[in-house]
Formats: sequence, structure tokens, C-alpha cells
Amino acid sequence: MNFKEELTEYQIFINKELDKIINKSDVPEKILNDSMMYSLMAGGKRIRPILILATYKLFNDNYSYAIPFAMAMELVHNFSLIHDDLPGIDNDDFRHGKLTNHKKFNEATAILAGDGLLNLAYCTISKELSNGIDTENKIKAFAELANAISRMIAGEYLDTELEGEDISKETLEYIHQNKTGALLKASAKIGAILANAKEDDIEKVSKYAEKIGLAFQIKDDILSEEGDSKITGKPVGNDKELNKCTYVRYYGIDGAKEELRKITEEAIKEISSYGEKAEFLKELAIYIKNRNK
Amino acid sequence: MNFKEELTEYQIFINKELDKIINKSDVPEKILNDSMMYSLMAGGKRIRPILILATYKLFNDNYSYAIPFAMAMELVHNFSLIHDDLPGIDNDDFRHGKLTNHKKFNEATAILAGDGLLNLAYCTISKELSNGIDTENKIKAFAELANAISRMIAGEYLDTELEGEDISKETLEYIHQNKTGALLKASAKIGAILANAKEDDIEKVSKYAEKIGLAFQIKDDILSEEGDSKITGKPVGNDKELNKCTYVRYYGIDGAKEELRKITEEAIKEISSYGEKAEFLKELAIYIKNRNK
Repeated sequence: MNFKEELTEYQIFINKELDKIINKSDVPEKILNDSMMYSLMAGGKRIRPILILATYKLFNDNYSYAIPFAMAMELVHNFSLIHDDLPGIDNDDFRHGKLTNHKKFNEATAILAGDGLLNLAYCTISKELSNGIDTENKIKAFAELANAISRMIAGEYLDTELEGEDISKETLEYIHQNKTGALLKASAKIGAILANAKEDDIEKVSKYAEKIGLAFQIKDDILSEEGDSKITGKPVGNDKELNKCTYVRYYGIDGAKEELRKITEEAIKEISSYGEKAEFLKELAIYIKNRNK
Repeated sequence: MNFKEELTEYQIFINKELDKIINKSDVPEKILNDSMMYSLMAGGKRIRPILILATYKLFNDNYSYAIPFAMAMELVHNFSLIHDDLPGIDNDDFRHGKLTNHKKFNEATAILAGDGLLNLAYCTISKELSNGIDTENKIKAFAELANAISRMIAGEYLDTELEGEDISKETLEYIHQNKTGALLKASAKIGAILANAKEDDIEKVSKYAEKIGLAFQIKDDILSEEGDSKITGKPVGNDKELNKCTYVRYYGIDGAKEELRKITEEAIKEISSYGEKAEFLKELAIYIKNRNK
């Protein structure tokens, strides 16, 4: 199976599992559940849950134990997207080429759907903890996730508050290490923790994920500048217009591309000692670098 | 110590513990933390954490084990208030006589402060679970909280979406059982679970809390109708103006007062078998009935 096939297989599997998670019965709050489902199924790439499952597989073949955490991670990611898009924050009308949650439903529903997804992530984890298997590692993974979410929220706050301001490269990196990096790093760590990996293995995959997190953000900024809006589903040049602090603004477009290439190489180096077993993670880093949406 | 003294002692203790929880260091996201702190310290009555601690004390004297969950519960409650007040939901300018979070800071900060408080609740629980003591009961309490929050969000959604519509008494009760009732019920259950209470004891305090939850909402509706806005900190007659579905609208003001009296009596009956030990909880039910804010 080549990388693209494996990636698609992961995505199909994750979509099926996510579909089971949302309550689809005819409860009074059905529209709230529909709105959570709408954003969840709007065409995300599933990078974070894939990172959990693939990192788990680096140390342990049967990744079924990691599924609830992979689901929780994707729920959290989608919560953050719905809230980021709100009129009070980024005020975006489209994501993945589809109407954002508050545009499709309404603002109240979008706020509560976001809250609902974040909380559903923790419902999923609490259920998983209740089965009494391998509790210690799961508690570690739970703490890792909760801390990463706090960091993500802090990063989103700074990104919003400092919009249009002249910030240092250090602040730009602090924002992205938190806003995008924290969940990606936690994904790799959680996979390794659940697979009972040793401390220095957890460290290695963390560094790998930290670097692909940075690469992810640089690529995002490049796509915002010169991507094809028909493919990215986002308006092009919007960041520049909004005077957003981005890597492209800081490095220039060529400098950002060079930085992206360098960081991706470094990421791959972090996991090179695993050889063949890390092939998928290596390809994933390259995929993040080369993606066009 | 009489009830009022004991209540005040609980409140002072809880405020001190809450104060320790928010990060007050000079991090870049300091204003986000300040805004979380602002709402947390805006003068809440701390009914929910008190319910956890007092229910715990019904079965076990030393309530120190219940503190992190009591904190988590109050954080969750404050998250829900910040989001309910947002322009996209209830659009309230004042709470407890102070500016609401989005009025004091801004909308983006309020959304993220709410998210941050919800997540901080789970950070607190994950930290508590990590100490390895009495893990099984704590996991049960964690699951109880997570499920109650999902119910609360569903109730808030319905309350918002059905505003102004003619709804049945059943729907009105469904909304409040979820919106207000779920967290109050979970508070009593969590206290009992952590104190290792027996199944039928957990059942008794749950019923007590379910009833004071209902009483709490009926009283809220009565205060909205005829309370002193200088004391409640909320505009009077606002619900009527907004054509909100309330118990007063359903029962009339006298009918609502009679219902409140009846429900409070029933709540007290549920815990009467505990005699002297349940004195505080009995007085708490009466306090909820008689409060003027």
C-alpha cells in the first residue's frame, strides 16, 4: 500500500468512527447535533487523529486502543475551527469551500456546537477511562490533551488580539507553537503514550510533531498568499489584506518556502532511527509540505 | 455554626481555592487569564461546588478529596454563563450587577475565556486523576460531569432556539432539567460518588438535587418577574418582554410560588433519613427558595 492509499484508508476509517460518535436519534436538540455533525464532516484532512494512530503503530501494531483518543482529538480540532470562524473572532463565511457553521445554522448554534464538540471529546475519553484497561497511560494521554487545548486557546487568543500589530518573530512562533503546534505535538505524544513507548521515544515523536506543526503553519500561510482559492476553499491574499502576522510577511514568500523545506527535513530526521516503520510518518511530513489545500 | 455562617465559610474557602487555579503569571496571554478570572470572581453564589462538598460531607468528614471536582464544577458553571451572555446568544450586558465578560473585554476574548474555563475544568480533573488515589471513583465522577455538561449545552441550545415559541410544560421542564438541572444533579452525585456512598444513597441525593435544581429555576423565573434589579443585578420583566418561556408564564406568579414551596418540601424529604447530618443541605434548599438574588 502506498502513502496516498494508506492516508485515504485512515481517513475513511476515521470518518466512519466519527459518524458513530454524534447522537443521531430524534432528540429535541437534534439540530444542535446536526450542526456538530455538519462541521465534523465538512471535509477535514484528519491529520491529528491520523498522527495519533500512525504514531501508535510505530510502537504497537493494534491501534484499536488509540481510537477513542483519535476521535477526541478530531472533535477538539473541529470545536476550535467553529469558534475561530465566528463573527466575534475571524468572521469567516467559508471553510473547506463550504459555509461555516454560523452561516449554515446561526451564531448561537455555532457557539454551542463548538462547546458541544469540545465537551464530547471529554465524554469520549471519560467513557474510555471507565473500561478499566490500561488506565495509567490513558490518564497521561488525557492530561496531555487537556494541556494542549489550553495552549491552543491561548494561541488563538493572541492571534486574534495581536492581529494587525507588528510582532516579533518570537511572538509569531509562540502563537503558532500554541495555536497549531500544541494539538499536533500532543497527537504524536498521545499515540506514543498509549502504545506504552519509552520516554526517549516519546521525546523523538514529539520533536517530529513539533516540527511538522511549524511546517503546517508555514504552508498554511503560503497557501493563503498564493494558493488556489477553488482548491483551498479560502480567499487568497486575505491574510495580507487583514494585515495578519504570518510567516510569509516575516520571511517573504521565498524565505517561507525555504524555511518549510528545512523544517520538513528536520522533522524527518527526528524519526529516521525507526527506519521502514516510520515510512508513513515521513511521507506525512512531505504531504504537509506539498499539499495544495 | 448556623447555616449562614457555614455558607459564608464555604464561599470564602471556594473563592480562595479558585484563586489558585488561574495562571496569574506574566504570560503573553495574560489578558485572557484576567478575563477568565474576572467572570470567576464576579460574585457567584458557589451553589454547585458547595453542593459537591456538602454532599461529600454527608458520607465522609474530610472533604479535601472533593475539592478539585468542586473547582472544576464552578469553572464549568462560569464558562456557561460567559457563553450564555454573548451577543449571539442572550446578549446580556450585566451579570451579578457587573459588566458581562464581552462587555468588559471583547467578544473574541469572552468566547475564548469561556472555552478556556471549560477546558481548565478538565485540566483540573486530569491533574487530580494523575495522583493515582481512588482512581475508580474519580473516573466515575469525571464521566458524570462530562455527561452533565453535554446535557447543559443541549438545554441552553433549546432555550435559545425556542425563545418566544409556545412550548409545552414538558418541553419547558426538559429544557430546565438539562440547562440548570443537569449540573446541580451532577454536583450532588459527584459528592456522593467521591465519598464512596452506596448506590441508594447516591440515588437519594440525586433526587434531592434534581428537585432543588427545579426549585432554583422556578425561583429564577420569579425573580426575573418581580425581583429587585438592584439586588439581582438583572433587569426585571426582561423575560416577559422577550416572550421567554418561564415557569411564571406557565403557572402564573402565585402558581409558580406554590410549585416552588412544594418542590422544596419534596427535596427536603429526600434527605430526611440522614437527620442532623443533612441539616446544611436542608437549609440550602430553603435558601434557594427564599433567596432574593
